[in-house]
Amino acid sequence: MSLIVQKFGGSSVADAESIKRVAKRIVATRTAGHEVVVAVSAMGDTTDELIDLAHEVTPIPDAREMDMLLTTGERISMALLAMAIKSLGHEARSYTGSQAGMITDAQHGSARIVDVTPTRVREALDDGAIAIVAGFQGFNRDSRDITTLGRGGSDTTAVALAAALNADVCEIYTDVDGVFTADPRVVPLARKIDRVSAEEMLELAASGAKVLHIRAVEFARRHGVALHVRSSFTPAEGTWVRNPIEGETMEEPIITGVAGDLSEAKITVVGVPDTPGKAADIFTMVAKTGANIDMIVQNVSAATTGRTDISFTLPKSDGSTVLTALRSEQESVGFLSLQYDDQIGKLSVVGGGMRTNAGVSAQLFTALKDAGINIEMISTSEIRISVVTRADILNEAVRTVHAAFGLDGDTEAAVYAGTGR
Amino acid sequence: MSLIVQKFGGSSVADAESIKRVAKRIVATRTAGHEVVVAVSAMGDTTDELIDLAHEVTPIPDAREMDMLLTTGERISMALLAMAIKSLGHEARSYTGSQAGMITDAQHGSARIVDVTPTRVREALDDGAIAIVAGFQGFNRDSRDITTLGRGGSDTTAVALAAALNADVCEIYTDVDGVFTADPRVVPLARKIDRVSAEEMLELAASGAKVLHIRAVEFARRHGVALHVRSSFTPAEGTWVRNPIEGETMEEPIITGVAGDLSEAKITVVGVPDTPGKAADIFTMVAKTGANIDMIVQNVSAATTGRTDISFTLPKSDGSTVLTALRSEQESVGFLSLQYDDQIGKLSVVGGGMRTNAGVSAQLFTALKDAGINIEMISTSEIRISVVTRADILNEAVRTVHAAFGLDGDTEAAVYAGTGR
Repeated sequence: MSLIVQKFGGSSVADAESIKRVAKRIVATRTAGHEVVVAVSAMGDTTDELIDLAHEVTPIPDAREMDMLLTTGERISMALLAMAIKSLGHEARSYTGSQAGMITDAQHGSARIVDVTPTRVREALDDGAIAIVAGFQGFNRDSRDITTLGRGGSDTTAVALAAALNADVCEIYTDVDGVFTADPRVVPLARKIDRVSAEEMLELAASGAKVLHIRAVEFARRHGVALHVRSSFTPAEGTWVRNPIEGETMEEPIITGVAGDLSEAKITVVGVPDTPGKAADIFTMVAKTGANIDMIVQNVSAATTGRTDISFTLPKSDGSTVLTALRSEQESVGFLSLQYDDQIGKLSVVGGGMRTNAGVSAQLFTALKDAGINIEMISTSEIRISVVTRADILNEAVRTVHAAFGLDGDTEAAVYAGTGR
Repeated sequence: MSLIVQKFGGSSVADAESIKRVAKRIVATRTAGHEVVVAVSAMGDTTDELIDLAHEVTPIPDAREMDMLLTTGERISMALLAMAIKSLGHEARSYTGSQAGMITDAQHGSARIVDVTPTRVREALDDGAIAIVAGFQGFNRDSRDITTLGRGGSDTTAVALAAALNADVCEIYTDVDGVFTADPRVVPLARKIDRVSAEEMLELAASGAKVLHIRAVEFARRHGVALHVRSSFTPAEGTWVRNPIEGETMEEPIITGVAGDLSEAKITVVGVPDTPGKAADIFTMVAKTGANIDMIVQNVSAATTGRTDISFTLPKSDGSTVLTALRSEQESVGFLSLQYDDQIGKLSVVGGGMRTNAGVSAQLFTALKDAGINIEMISTSEIRISVVTRADILNEAVRTVHAAFGLDGDTEAAVYAGTGR
């Protein structure tokens, strides 16, 4: 008998009918003989609606109270799901993040999990019951307050429970068949990946692949939790995110997937005096804003001017905050001007096999050159190469590179509406 | 400096605008120098909407999960209210029933408060903050589960907090000016009562007056909490529910108010054999259904038949349950038949002065006779006389009796839409 943790996102539990359908899926897993723990998100757009409601009351909602407000979303869906399962004749109990032992720090709105003590969940399983746990929330011991986990919170709840309970697998249910070699809505010939390593999934998620949150992938990698990303609409196998098991091929594909990301912008600090420490000054003040910097490029300084340009990319949502911070330091750093470009796209190829195979960059750059696509910035890691291009040709570039690396399938991937969560 | 507990019902916090308005009211009380604790209901019709949602999922929602679901309503309003108060520059913190120390038994859906240990609320007050507590909910220590208090729950939460914190007063905010000598929508010349004793309020609430729940009134009476029922729309004094204080007149009015109740039905057990123990049998089996029996009348048995009829009134909602229970025992008890009459109305006159003044019943029965209104059943207590009439003339009877006892005011009472909660 194995222990399975299943995570269902907001679109899977959007209304009463969906909840009843998900309940049947859960009961089928239990009936097959497994112990089942479920992490569930709020119904549909509930979280966004609650945020809007808070902003109707005040433009600056208090963080502690915001967490008290938002956590009601998952409580509603978990209670309804438990009711639905019970009406199918199976024992089920719902637990808040606090009752499930999800202990976090005190950072309201973006709490980090510090410990998981799922005693009551384990007791429910021992009683033969299905345990439903509210995703996205936890409890801080010092303040005795409820917290929310921030982006990717429900995926992270599921993975954390799987780790703490020593689950055999953590199934992430979504409305697509699994992880694809590229976004099927951009690359119709993209194929579903059967298995991908945690490191590759990490890179794919960081590069724009939306099906799994990077935070949950990293948690799973660090704690050795096997993930299975699959469709809530069919019983078909999805994509396994784990290291190879006995008997599987040990060779990794050179390229696992191609990801495109349109969420970033580029800031160029023009005319930075070429004296030691300027880059440190700039990125120290940027770090204070809390913005997540991605790629950084510093050109060689022009001998004639003694100045250089430094460019970096960051989420568009952090753009104005960082520009404001930099402008306030213009005099002390001594740069000439700032440029802001929100028309960039980032293309990444990810593959574990890159480590042992030379020429991947060359193959990538050649494919782009042959398609007449200009590369503006380059950034690499052991198993990923990213390039920045113009935003308007990003999708075309992804399709070109996908084909150039032999990833195209024979048939168009069936694509479901919705983005899953 | 005094400590005031304020309770706001669902219609007072129906939307963002109302919440902001209530926040200003609360801040005004705090600014005046009082310590303030607020008990709040769910926004508008949220509770009913959640119940409907549950029934969309299953016709038989599990009781534990229903409490988990319903308690989200108060959590939403308390968090928004705390946010609104903070945006006005005052410290405020929201607390769930559990966090506020509202300890109950394990009866999901109708839990009884067994203890109140408002440690965190007291700490908030000591820090100078306003404490907002979710009404209608508590926590059971044995199961470690969240419970809801059932009907009148939010009023009861407020009164229980007031008792445990030794508050100077518990203000119940509603959308009418206070408790009236009769329902102003039925008797336009009804007047607002300035002060009523707890015992009288208990009788009025039990007799159909809807502004305060009988459960909260009884809790207040037993724990010596002064209640002040007032309008959330004006700063005017409402109705004080307490015993007279120094300097106030010690004489109670003979009649404080007239109440009408259309929520009951009458069951007549026809032809009960006139042997010892039959009434006991009947009411024992009725008690097992959990129905709340109100008035009981047993006629003298007919010498010729050796049988008698027993009539009693009960909430219409309990009607079919009790009829079913009685029918199943027809043979063992030996009665001839059952009659069910849901067209009855109950009129009650309440007044502490009744204790020391004879002739109130005579005055009541005479007023009804003069108006041609037939009395079908009579029931009395120390400070209340109730009669059952036909439902269709109840309101006319209430107006007649109100005038006959000199309760009519000079002007029509201003009546606000809505029923408060």
